[in-house]
Amino acid sequence: MIELYHCVNARSFRPLWTLEELGAPYQLHMLPFPPRALQRSYLELNPLGTIPLLVDGDTRMTESAAICQYLAQRCDPANQRGLAVLPDEPGYGAWLNFLHHGEATLTFPQTIVLRYGRFEPDERKLPQAADDYAKWFIARLRGIDTVLQQHAFVAADRFTVADVSVGYALMLAREIDLVSRFPPAVAAYAERLQQRDGFRRALAAQREAAVAQGISPSTSTGPA
Amino acid sequence: MIELYHCVNARSFRPLWTLEELGAPYQLHMLPFPPRALQRSYLELNPLGTIPLLVDGDTRMTESAAICQYLAQRCDPANQRGLAVLPDEPGYGAWLNFLHHGEATLTFPQTIVLRYGRFEPDERKLPQAADDYAKWFIARLRGIDTVLQQHAFVAADRFTVADVSVGYALMLAREIDLVSRFPPAVAAYAERLQQRDGFRRALAAQREAAVAQGISPSTSTGPA
Repeated sequence: MIELYHCVNARSFRPLWTLEELGAPYQLHMLPFPPRALQRSYLELNPLGTIPLLVDGDTRMTESAAICQYLAQRCDPANQRGLAVLPDEPGYGAWLNFLHHGEATLTFPQTIVLRYGRFEPDERKLPQAADDYAKWFIARLRGIDTVLQQHAFVAADRFTVADVSVGYALMLAREIDLVSRFPPAVAAYAERLQQRDGFRRALAAQREAAVAQGISPSTSTGPA
Repeated sequence: MIELYHCVNARSFRPLWTLEELGAPYQLHMLPFPPRALQRSYLELNPLGTIPLLVDGDTRMTESAAICQYLAQRCDPANQRGLAVLPDEPGYGAWLNFLHHGEATLTFPQTIVLRYGRFEPDERKLPQAADDYAKWFIARLRGIDTVLQQHAFVAADRFTVADVSVGYALMLAREIDLVSRFPPAVAAYAERLQQRDGFRRALAAQREAAVAQGISPSTSTGPA
C-alpha cells in the first residue's frame, strides 16, 4: 500500500491529486504544519522534516514533482490514463520540462514570498525579498503563458502530471494573492484544472483525513 | 544536432556534463552572464531569458535537471551507459527523487545566497536572507549525506544523471564558500564527481567554446 505524508495544501497535494486522478489506493497520513516543529516524531521517518514523504515498499521519495512522475508509471504502467508522456511521443521533452518547472521555477519563489512576507516574526520579515520574488514568479509565468495561448495543457495536448506540477504552483499563488496578476490564459487554465473531478476529490480526501486524524482542515499552510 | 545555450558554470553545466558523459555530438552556444541583460537578442530564443535552453528539433527545454533526463533517453535509448535508471529497477524512485532534489532543494536556496549576498547592489543586499538560505542549504544536505554514508552514488549504486543534478549543486556551493560546511561523506562524493573524465571534459568544453566565442572563460557566474 502506498503511504503519503501530507499537510493541508502543502506541496504533497501534488502526489495526492495524482493518486486521485489515477484512482489508485493509498493511505494518507496528515501532519500539522510545519511538522518538523509540531510533530517531532516525523523526523524519524524523514530526517529533513519536509513534506511530502512517499513510502512504497523500499522506495522513499520527498520531491513532490518526482513522486508524480513515479506514480504515473507505478500505478499505470501501460499509461492507460495518459498521465505520463512516453519517450517516443513528441511532447516528451516538454512534459519533463514542465514537471520540473512547476516546482523549481514556479513554486520555490513563492516560498520566499511566504517566508518573508507571512511566516517569519515581524522583526525578521523582509518586504523587499517578498516583493522581489513575487515579481520574479509573475515574470516566469510568461513561459507557460506562451504555451497556454495555443494549447489547453502544458504538454502533449492532454492532462498529464506536468499539469499537476504546474497546477499546484498556481493553486499556491491563490494563497498569497498573486492570482490577480496572472496573464488571462494562465488564469483560465488554473480555473479549468481546479474544476477537474480529480482535483476536487483530492481536496475532499485531505479534508476528510484531516478531520479523522484531528488536524485542522482549514489551516492555510504554505509548502513545508 | 542538439544545441545548448550556456553561461560559464551556470545551471546549463548539467546538460553539458551529461552530453560529455554520453559522448554525444552537440553545438555549444556561449552567452555572457546574465544574458537577459547583456545579450538581449537571446530573449527571442527564450523569452524567460534563463539558462539553459536546449533545442533539439521541435523540442525546447529550459529546466536543467529535466534536460539531463531527456538526454539520457534521447542519446542512449538502450541505456548502455546506465545514466538513466529504468522503471523496473529498484532505484527508479530514488533516481527521480534526486534528479529533482539537486535543483529544487539544493540549488534554488543557493541562488538566494548569491543574489542577496553578492549580485545585488549594496543598498539592496540582504545579509539575513543570504544567511538564512546558506543554513537552509546546509541542513538539506542531510538527505544525501544519509545515502552517501552507505553508497558511492545517490541512486542505483552507479553514476547516473541524478549525480549530475546533485553534483552541480555541490559545484555551485564551492563558488559561495559553503564547501567547508559539507558533511564528510558529501565532501568526498563532490570530490569524486569532479575527478570524473566527463566532468573535466565539460569544463574544458566550456572554456574552449568561451574563448572561441569571445566570452570570458573565467567569469564566476551564478545560475541564470
